Amino acid sequence: MFPATSLFAPVEADLKILADNLKQLVGNRHPILYAAAEHLFGAGGKRIRPAIVLLVSRATMQEQDINPCHRRLAEITEMIHTASLVHDDVVDESEIRRSVATVHNIFGNRIAVLAGDFLFAQSSWYLANLNNLEVVKLLSEVIMDLAVGEIQQGLNRLDTSTSLEIYLQKSYYKTASLIANSSKAAGLLSNVTTETAEYIYSYGRHLGLAFQIVDDILDFTSSSSALGKPVGSDLKSGNLTAPVLFALEEKPYLEVLIEREFAQEGDLEQAIALIKNSQGIQKSRELAIKYSKIAVDNIEELTPSQSRQTLINLANYVSSRLE
Amino acid sequence: MFPATSLFAPVEADLKILADNLKQLVGNRHPILYAAAEHLFGAGGKRIRPAIVLLVSRATMQEQDINPCHRRLAEITEMIHTASLVHDDVVDESEIRRSVATVHNIFGNRIAVLAGDFLFAQSSWYLANLNNLEVVKLLSEVIMDLAVGEIQQGLNRLDTSTSLEIYLQKSYYKTASLIANSSKAAGLLSNVTTETAEYIYSYGRHLGLAFQIVDDILDFTSSSSALGKPVGSDLKSGNLTAPVLFALEEKPYLEVLIEREFAQEGDLEQAIALIKNSQGIQKSRELAIKYSKIAVDNIEELTPSQSRQTLINLANYVSSRLE
Repeated sequence: MFPATSLFAPVEADLKILADNLKQLVGNRHPILYAAAEHLFGAGGKRIRPAIVLLVSRATMQEQDINPCHRRLAEITEMIHTASLVHDDVVDESEIRRSVATVHNIFGNRIAVLAGDFLFAQSSWYLANLNNLEVVKLLSEVIMDLAVGEIQQGLNRLDTSTSLEIYLQKSYYKTASLIANSSKAAGLLSNVTTETAEYIYSYGRHLGLAFQIVDDILDFTSSSSALGKPVGSDLKSGNLTAPVLFALEEKPYLEVLIEREFAQEGDLEQAIALIKNSQGIQKSRELAIKYSKIAVDNIEELTPSQSRQTLINLANYVSSRLE
Repeated sequence: MFPATSLFAPVEADLKILADNLKQLVGNRHPILYAAAEHLFGAGGKRIRPAIVLLVSRATMQEQDINPCHRRLAEITEMIHTASLVHDDVVDESEIRRSVATVHNIFGNRIAVLAGDFLFAQSSWYLANLNNLEVVKLLSEVIMDLAVGEIQQGLNRLDTSTSLEIYLQKSYYKTASLIANSSKAAGLLSNVTTETAEYIYSYGRHLGLAFQIVDDILDFTSSSSALGKPVGSDLKSGNLTAPVLFALEEKPYLEVLIEREFAQEGDLEQAIALIKNSQGIQKSRELAIKYSKIAVDNIEELTPSQSRQTLINLANYVSSRLE
């Protein structure tokens, strides 16, 4: 998602510590989990979520040093994210993620389900040991949202009557909830006021939605080498994202192609072309920019600092990826 | 496991409330989850684990009324147990449990993985809302143990060098940890002393191990109609339990049959006969009785009450199932 990881310069040292800790935390209970952890935390992950947690931590500590709880929260956030990816890959029977074979592909379904369970369980355990009930509640909510989002995505598969509202709700559950709630939790660990906590939550929520919309646009406009998977993969799997929903408003034939599940030769290519020739991409882009701006507005409520500036840059960067 | 559910008379009314609550708690987030919940919580489950939680709650409240947190803990305990069953069935590709088709068989792998995730997540969320960090820690540990136990069971499959110690460790992770830690948590919610909490934990630990050993004996000595699955199912799947490990000490040919994975006609039947003709069943029985007695000794440290007596009867009942 972020080739420009230089964006994360203020927390680069923190992210190195995090990468080492994650392998140790997950691997110390079992050799096979260690192997899976090496695989999971070794390659490809861009650590956007823990980077945001660390940046919010630094911004709310006003650049005083962050404490071990902040670091642990960042690790927990990455564990939860990874656990959900591992189970999503089982559910979706994906063979490749981030250009690397998935856990269920290498280790089998069995270990993938269990490794995901173990990661979720371990994150709950570390969470409890942060000794902050509010934080436990926020992150438990996230784990529920991830499951509900994935179920909803499955149920709305190929459903051309899906509304933009349902798409945004699903995107909140699957992407924005983790960013919003872990950011808010980082603020709570710095003892921010309730009002500030809400600004941080709103930053995370809108940034997360913008992320998701941009990713869904790139599924059509990027190249397969940049994506690490074929163009239009989401559409092919029946996941109707913002560009598709906007395009459906002006291209009725798209509905026909989707409803016959791209059964005929060239259907998928034709559908992708219809979407690219519609206002779908542009309208989606405007929505992402709108959310990025709301994110910036919210985070500007914090006291200025280098970390706050990075969070602003991050929100601006999201929509710039489309240019 | 318990045809004699009359054993649970002191908490029968509590268990009715629990059954209704469980369906509502799980189903209110999504229709498909409601369907899965109906299926999961509707049939066959004997609610031994929540019954124990409710009995410990009543025993430690000295028969004063238990509070809503005790009830919620009992519900969480059943949710965690159910979630682990759903994922075990995916992992083991089981088609039948308790004589009923499994979730992954009816709803597919996809919904089974997600329903399990959702149940785990929801139990973490309700757990956090008990507002007792110690309880959150105990039950998070259980969820980790369940995953580690299942992984360990997979790794030791068909391994005839497995020791009794490893078998007991795995049985703790897979069965006893939930009973021990949820019982202890019920005590903590009644504000028992640290010492009493440890007695309760030890009761649950030894009762859980006795349960597991008895179940593993019945896999050989019971009938397929009573088990709801063929005799020797565990052995066939490569799960080497106490009777097998004891029998291996005196029947070297058993090792040959296991190591060739019962590949030849009649191998499984011959292995079952070798085990039944060994001291394996008797030695396992003695071990289960020993653990039941330790469980009784520990729970007798509580002030006498009807609920305490039921917990004692339960421990005695476990080994009486073998007569």
